Amino acid sequence: MSAEKRNVLRWKAADKKPEQHPDLLAAEEPLEIQVETRPISVTMRTPGHDDELAAGFLLTEGLISDRNQIAQIVPYPRNPDGNAINFFLSPDVPIDFTRLTRHVFASSSCGLCGTATIEAVHKTFPPVTGEFVVSARLLLDLPPKLRARQETFDRTGGLHAAGLFTLRGRSIVAREDVGRHNAVDKVLGYALLNGMLPLNEAILVVSGRASFEIMQKALAGRIQMVVAVSAPSSLAVDFADKSGQTLVAFAREDRLNVYTHSERVQFPALKASASSQKLTKKARK
Amino acid sequence: MSAEKRNVLRWKAADKKPEQHPDLLAAEEPLEIQVETRPISVTMRTPGHDDELAAGFLLTEGLISDRNQIAQIVPYPRNPDGNAINFFLSPDVPIDFTRLTRHVFASSSCGLCGTATIEAVHKTFPPVTGEFVVSARLLLDLPPKLRARQETFDRTGGLHAAGLFTLRGRSIVAREDVGRHNAVDKVLGYALLNGMLPLNEAILVVSGRASFEIMQKALAGRIQMVVAVSAPSSLAVDFADKSGQTLVAFAREDRLNVYTHSERVQFPALKASASSQKLTKKARK
Repeated sequence: MSAEKRNVLRWKAADKKPEQHPDLLAAEEPLEIQVETRPISVTMRTPGHDDELAAGFLLTEGLISDRNQIAQIVPYPRNPDGNAINFFLSPDVPIDFTRLTRHVFASSSCGLCGTATIEAVHKTFPPVTGEFVVSARLLLDLPPKLRARQETFDRTGGLHAAGLFTLRGRSIVAREDVGRHNAVDKVLGYALLNGMLPLNEAILVVSGRASFEIMQKALAGRIQMVVAVSAPSSLAVDFADKSGQTLVAFAREDRLNVYTHSERVQFPALKASASSQKLTKKARK
Repeated sequence: MSAEKRNVLRWKAADKKPEQHPDLLAAEEPLEIQVETRPISVTMRTPGHDDELAAGFLLTEGLISDRNQIAQIVPYPRNPDGNAINFFLSPDVPIDFTRLTRHVFASSSCGLCGTATIEAVHKTFPPVTGEFVVSARLLLDLPPKLRARQETFDRTGGLHAAGLFTLRGRSIVAREDVGRHNAVDKVLGYALLNGMLPLNEAILVVSGRASFEIMQKALAGRIQMVVAVSAPSSLAVDFADKSGQTLVAFAREDRLNVYTHSERVQFPALKASASSQKLTKKARK
């Protein structure tokens, strides 16, 4: 269950008195992710699809890359809420616990400037290359399709969403969470658990902003194109540029911005590869 | 500098060709926070006010509670970007490095259900009590005031904002960041560095959603009232209820919702304390 009911006082400036009302809220609870019964992370998340969330986390942290590396997934009820999940891995998977911390790529050992961070990520997840082309009009249709698949948003207004789409714009999976990174981990975990990696021919759509971590997680799944409804950060753009990823943002109703690798986007009047590769080079600082 | 320029292809569905355009993006870079030269956290943040961000982080992690506990703040240029900052503390401040990890409150040792999480936080930051009352109309004015103080948002569309206001609605400080928690850490760090703690008589306003961590950080600063422009999560509401905090959300233009401790909100036709305390009790699950 990803929505919970609470009472609320609603007030409009036009009214003198507030009204008491039941309200649906996005659920938020901690989940402990364990590997071989060892706790490696606790994240605040919206309950549901915990196996996908944990699998996506292990993928994007660089620990596993295929469902065959997972021997068994055990929800581990330390308490009545059961907010823990344990992954037993195949004997042939080397487990490097020193890597198992969020922000591993931004840790002091990798240097701290943006460039060094990007290079550090590329040691684990090399840049992608790919030749596919999709039309700008198809991309504009994706955010409304994601919204249509959001089960909880319309009731609570409080959740981020992430979705995977085919190059023809068909929805593969959509997930929601109070945390935007968690929503991305969930769809990547879904893909991993269903043997769909690498996602060479999928588009990741996120309901909010595109940050460095979103692009890094997409790269872990080998995703070449990310569409965000809101703004990208500067490091997200730099990372996408150097990682070979197409980053589309501000995709709203009738317009969008392409920040990097626009050779994969076909506009009505243009062949795909002409002016766009120039942009990619100029986009560097 | 918190905005960076990149080239972008802008396209509208009504146009055949996209246009190349310079675009301002919210800057995002890692910052390493050190205590006594020991790295304790790396966060992706919008550069600027790093001393406030780090001070707020140490406050909300429960390590320090007063500026007098800080002996010296040293930006530590490990690399040309200088994305590290070190805090030397007074000799009388006990440093418990085991507590210095984000999500310390949600770690396995504190139990994992929501209730246990809240109780664990209360061991470090007890609930607040306070008798002040502000008018609902004053609260409605706060989000536009915060927006007016946002320096970067209108240019990039990519930043979260947090601000502190007096009970009369005067802006004390406003800060922006790609991370919503960072924006809150920055305003709390500002308050700490300027000797303004505890914030018994301040209102925290956030531009986005109200999560558990936002409420927990507010409690670390002893803030009794939080106003969010978007939705709260269920745990944010439960935490605010049990922590004695007034949580107002969906504060937009001409309306708002009061989720907890509405005794501090005065509506036009009501005295402050009457029907509202009932709500607080009913609001529990």
